[in-house]
Amino acid sequence: MTETPLGGGGEFDRIRAIAAALGGRARELGNDTALVRLGDTTVALSADVSVEGVHFRREWLSFEEIGWRAAASALSDLAASGAEPIGVLAALTIPAQEPLSTFVALMQGVGAAVDAVGGKVLGGDLSRGAAIALALTVLGTATTPVKRSGAHPGDGVWVTGELGGARAALTAFLAAREPDPGARARFARPEPRIAWGRWLAAHGARAMLDVSDGLAGDAGHLAAASGVALRIELERVPCHPAVRAEALQAGEPAPVFAAKGGEDYELLVVLPSAFPGAVEFPLTRVGEVLPGAGLRLELAGRPVVLAGYEHFA
Amino acid sequence: MTETPLGGGGEFDRIRAIAAALGGRARELGNDTALVRLGDTTVALSADVSVEGVHFRREWLSFEEIGWRAAASALSDLAASGAEPIGVLAALTIPAQEPLSTFVALMQGVGAAVDAVGGKVLGGDLSRGAAIALALTVLGTATTPVKRSGAHPGDGVWVTGELGGARAALTAFLAAREPDPGARARFARPEPRIAWGRWLAAHGARAMLDVSDGLAGDAGHLAAASGVALRIELERVPCHPAVRAEALQAGEPAPVFAAKGGEDYELLVVLPSAFPGAVEFPLTRVGEVLPGAGLRLELAGRPVVLAGYEHFA
Repeated sequence: MTETPLGGGGEFDRIRAIAAALGGRARELGNDTALVRLGDTTVALSADVSVEGVHFRREWLSFEEIGWRAAASALSDLAASGAEPIGVLAALTIPAQEPLSTFVALMQGVGAAVDAVGGKVLGGDLSRGAAIALALTVLGTATTPVKRSGAHPGDGVWVTGELGGARAALTAFLAAREPDPGARARFARPEPRIAWGRWLAAHGARAMLDVSDGLAGDAGHLAAASGVALRIELERVPCHPAVRAEALQAGEPAPVFAAKGGEDYELLVVLPSAFPGAVEFPLTRVGEVLPGAGLRLELAGRPVVLAGYEHFA
Repeated sequence: MTETPLGGGGEFDRIRAIAAALGGRARELGNDTALVRLGDTTVALSADVSVEGVHFRREWLSFEEIGWRAAASALSDLAASGAEPIGVLAALTIPAQEPLSTFVALMQGVGAAVDAVGGKVLGGDLSRGAAIALALTVLGTATTPVKRSGAHPGDGVWVTGELGGARAALTAFLAAREPDPGARARFARPEPRIAWGRWLAAHGARAMLDVSDGLAGDAGHLAAASGVALRIELERVPCHPAVRAEALQAGEPAPVFAAKGGEDYELLVVLPSAFPGAVEFPLTRVGEVLPGAGLRLELAGRPVVLAGYEHFA
């Protein structure tokens, strides 16, 4: 099998162990999105689980938002491979005592997120279970699929949009404060960057992933998959407006707070250095690709060590 | 949207409500398998959830068997549409205290089941959660896809293999008895009937589904989706050898015991009446398609009413 090297973290140790045990029974497991060639088409597929108490709490979000967020998270993997969505299969487990309206609201959220990017709900499965869990598998097609593994020394490292909004909301939720409305929207209804991902794929993106576990962790995976080093200057990281106040409370510099946040579902993309950057969506250069290995995060010229979000911590 | 009519049962009420709420944001939701046309290829996709305490107990099965069984259940949906598997995406939730070996064993079981039918593990997602749950999405291609909806009055109704083995094992497990080894194998390592499904699809199958919820429930869905009535003579149902003893203990006629059992993952298929039946695998005619609606189960010429397995009961 071809194993895509992964950066650090407990989840990635598990993926590595599974890949080793499966041997030839698995294909390349390191990318969020599986790419399968079918005739003239490349099919892109990605699965994503959202579990109550792990990825969300029902006190924070409506059931429609929970459905939207779960679907957006899965669709974001398609965005990062430059794919166009066709639809989603939704496997839901729900406690037996939940009313029918819970199912319907969750699926309305899933349907709205898929509809917003031109896809459909294609099918799924329902089961009871101890907690609400949505396992969503998204299907798309990619004309010029992008992986994590194509970065070369000399390329530039860019991010779309602004980071830290979702973490600003999460920090407020966890402290039982009302989050800033803009930050709450980033957490509750993230927008998968499908159009941006397709544009970047068509305009020379060498490597791409979505920032779902925090810039630090995700940039580390991209560096490992590409066999290069990445240098990111944190002061260049574009921060959501709500970051400043939450970072102050957390006692962290704003770009550090933003870089530690996951689940903004912006794209981290490596582009050739000659890339002009004349794009119609927010795209900010935050660093460069170097020979070597690993991730170097710097703030005002000094190295910084940050952990990515760790689901199994 | 095109909604495939469904038979009775609480899960199907939920699917109906979801389909109504989604409207045009969903495609045909009544089949286990979504069929998507991509260029010259029809892609077949199905999602299936297996939850600890709902679909299995860890006292009964090894983790490898749990993984195999979950994958076989999903692959069985591909078999019923006449599709050839490409691979599976595995979204696993596991309690945080489970060792790495649990993940590996579950995925070895998934990998073995997929490998047995020529597919690969394509990707997935890992999360912690209160119980072990496997949400598996299988991908395949279908040259002559078969749905539930093509049965016509005058056609014959057939089943592959033998029914009731999985229920015989389950009944023993629930009574804390050691199941018959053959029955246990049917429960623990069901074989998705991929080759048989492809052969049937290529030889004129009009409608097909896999018997996962019991013959009674599944035949009712096929009748509803096709807009016909089905008559099944229960004494014709081929029973697994372990059924006799368990049916006696349960105080049920053997074919009734077998017809109530789910999770044998045999195929229920409607074939033209002229179908010769000269096949190289076990295929038994159990009934016929009639004008009208609904399912008529008969035993020795007398009507019988049976419920299918109800996950939300």
